[in-house]
Amino acid sequence: MIKLNLNEEWIKRIDEIIAAFLPEEEGFPKPLYEAMNYSMKTGGKRIRPILLQETFKLFSAENDEVCHAMMAAIEMIHTYSLVHDDLPAMDNDEYRRGQKTTHIVYGEAMAILAGDGLLNLAYETAIKVLNTADTVMLTRGVKALKILAEKAGCKGMIGGQTADILAEDGLLEPSDELLYFIHGHKTAALIQSAMMIGGILAGADDENIAKLAKAAYNIGVAFQLQDDILDVTGNFQDLGKPIGSDAENHKLTGVIMKGLAEAHKEVSALSIEAIEILNSFPRQNEFLVKLVESLICRKK
Amino acid sequence: MIKLNLNEEWIKRIDEIIAAFLPEEEGFPKPLYEAMNYSMKTGGKRIRPILLQETFKLFSAENDEVCHAMMAAIEMIHTYSLVHDDLPAMDNDEYRRGQKTTHIVYGEAMAILAGDGLLNLAYETAIKVLNTADTVMLTRGVKALKILAEKAGCKGMIGGQTADILAEDGLLEPSDELLYFIHGHKTAALIQSAMMIGGILAGADDENIAKLAKAAYNIGVAFQLQDDILDVTGNFQDLGKPIGSDAENHKLTGVIMKGLAEAHKEVSALSIEAIEILNSFPRQNEFLVKLVESLICRKK
Repeated sequence: MIKLNLNEEWIKRIDEIIAAFLPEEEGFPKPLYEAMNYSMKTGGKRIRPILLQETFKLFSAENDEVCHAMMAAIEMIHTYSLVHDDLPAMDNDEYRRGQKTTHIVYGEAMAILAGDGLLNLAYETAIKVLNTADTVMLTRGVKALKILAEKAGCKGMIGGQTADILAEDGLLEPSDELLYFIHGHKTAALIQSAMMIGGILAGADDENIAKLAKAAYNIGVAFQLQDDILDVTGNFQDLGKPIGSDAENHKLTGVIMKGLAEAHKEVSALSIEAIEILNSFPRQNEFLVKLVESLICRKK
Repeated sequence: MIKLNLNEEWIKRIDEIIAAFLPEEEGFPKPLYEAMNYSMKTGGKRIRPILLQETFKLFSAENDEVCHAMMAAIEMIHTYSLVHDDLPAMDNDEYRRGQKTTHIVYGEAMAILAGDGLLNLAYETAIKVLNTADTVMLTRGVKALKILAEKAGCKGMIGGQTADILAEDGLLEPSDELLYFIHGHKTAALIQSAMMIGGILAGADDENIAKLAKAAYNIGVAFQLQDDILDVTGNFQDLGKPIGSDAENHKLTGVIMKGLAEAHKEVSALSIEAIEILNSFPRQNEFLVKLVESLICRKK
């Protein structure tokens, strides 16, 4: 049986893959590249790239190098969204993963530009998947690119961030529908794109991609509900950020809507269903299943 | 001889093309879509999409519908860069094209998200160029997508914006090299991508694409130098923004580096060379030449 520790070897491995796509720190805009790289290098569990890679392995025994550009791209999108989310006009957070946020270190203007730079770099990186003469891989690459752009966009992740902020500002009425919209878009959409792209690049058929979308939705929502729970029950040392900031920011969370006990139950139900789906495919990936379990039962 | 007026018929035509790619204003994140559409609809000369389309016509007599997605994408990228540029932490502008800027109307958080949304939507839109079973067009589409992402990115436009801000803050020593870096990246890079993509989609060969890159660089730098000149010599009514804001913001401009007379001369020299290049291709496009002339000799 595989034992998982979130600080383990594989995070280093993912970081090496990502590092190859980051900008050199040179020329007139040097502080921009420093801010982009600082944002990318401050810790992070690398959940999205590892889910992408492990989902690929769930459907293919071939070399997974074909995933590298998309793995980096998806982490860049995740990171830019955090950099902009932390800005004073948004959540106004000074710490993230125990480190000072980008705008605290580099100033607001550079943080805005670093976020823009990372989002654009994500697409510069993702389209490298089209660098192939193999028409089968080209078709998969186009399909993967579409999923990435759709899930990250204004009808995906950015739509979720917006609803989150509108709810915080009391401009949307709290409801279960709104809670699931926020968690489903702000968090689950990018997890979906990670796992769907892993499947697509490995040649999974449409039916299996739809199953992956469902499993990833559950994982994303459960992950976010766990986040809501940890914001109430965790501690600074584990989380690397202040506790209770959700309440302070008037965030709409699973704990507020359901209470702690119900939120815990929901996390369980969602994760059990997700793992059942992952176990239903012809190939097995024990590491992926353990990873999903550890993400959902995490303390940080 | 064609007479050009920047408020003419073709701006409406371009706006109709772009409108087809903008988001419906519905659902929880409705204010986001409103802010995105507001940003896209506030005037604008639509220079980049029209240059793309007319450069296509310079190399092909075929239906230019294949350009539409890229035309919209490039205007979205231009627009998002303005929305973020206008933010309080950046240039802190309240007016743009005579209208209130996005963050003034929708607030800072929504302006940050609307900018992110437009940048992402640009790629969602641009990759529609890959929706083709024609392998020749697919190859052109991939090439066009790479140019778009590179020119818009941290080694392109965003790099230029960064150098601009660092110069404003006195963190970079004023020099001709820096001035041309800023104008070449902040402004010319996106003009280059417009004209190069027009050529690529029309099947222009690499030698001609390189010529287009040179012509577009000249047009972009001349356009920006003209902007610098107008900031000193124009008026609010024509420009739709306050005069003298460059000096107020400590911007590094062509007028500051060269003086008005030299800046005028430079605009002339760059535009003459650009038009010579445009006239050197086998096909002629009188409209494109007049357009370039009008852009560079403009009063607003």
